[in-house]
Amino acid sequence: MAETSRMLQARALLQQCLHARLQIRPAEGDAAAQWVEVTSARQLSLSSGMRVNTLLNVKLSETENGKHVSILDLPGNILIIPQATLGGRLKGRNMQYHSNSGKEEGLELYSQFVTLCEKEVAANSKCAEAGVVVEHGTYGNRQVLKLDTNGPFTHLIEF
Amino acid sequence: MAETSRMLQARALLQQCLHARLQIRPAEGDAAAQWVEVTSARQLSLSSGMRVNTLLNVKLSETENGKHVSILDLPGNILIIPQATLGGRLKGRNMQYHSNSGKEEGLELYSQFVTLCEKEVAANSKCAEAGVVVEHGTYGNRQVLKLDTNGPFTHLIEF
Repeated sequence: MAETSRMLQARALLQQCLHARLQIRPAEGDAAAQWVEVTSARQLSLSSGMRVNTLLNVKLSETENGKHVSILDLPGNILIIPQATLGGRLKGRNMQYHSNSGKEEGLELYSQFVTLCEKEVAANSKCAEAGVVVEHGTYGNRQVLKLDTNGPFTHLIEF
Repeated sequence: MAETSRMLQARALLQQCLHARLQIRPAEGDAAAQWVEVTSARQLSLSSGMRVNTLLNVKLSETENGKHVSILDLPGNILIIPQATLGGRLKGRNMQYHSNSGKEEGLELYSQFVTLCEKEVAANSKCAEAGVVVEHGTYGNRQVLKLDTNGPFTHLIEF
């Protein structure tokens, strides 16, 4: 594979899926668990600060006739999942997360990312017309994910 | 994040899951689709040659009391999914796969990986006793994945 020689700032994992469901609050006492749910979605798993524009415009979403277009052009729903584990580095038999953002900075970067994503989708006429949904997980909490794909087709984009 | 400065040889994506189901042959005429299925699994998505030993021994599998141990120590079932898309690099708005292994080499590396994985699991007394299953997808074919996790908890390991 290609040589990499730079300071890694962020990682995103992109996964097109038919249906995804993310638990954002577990069941507690009488209160049922809360889930966010999207259909025909691009799932975005994030670590650290991201370039929203690049991720929304990369041509990784498959149309019915097999052509690849961006999620904005499809258009498709989006589920954003914060994943600190993506920033892990292998040290011996353990993963270490020393190079991840701190919690406060991470929360701020994540909130900015979600807001920017919502703005770009709202400003796109195709997405607005199709009623595209942007759902997202909560930062710093354990979340349960259920995923249906029509091919794993996972891509990693680093900044 | 940390600086990376070396030739990237391989990427693996590790995902602990409660249940995973991978379609290895789609329905055709009267023949129903074929699936492989594992429960309480570590899902491994692969690109290029891998170090089996490292991946089977990294402590990323959560026990019932929240401790992290290796998949061999858990012990847990394994589903191996070949994913050429993990080797993609962003170029403009497209992903390019120029640095992936060629098809023949890729198939050989993948077959070796699966065989080594099966051998290591068979040689491990905990796994043998628990009847650990190693399932795997077929190289070079589109596969449909359904996944239930108890937290996305996705890790990337590069060699």
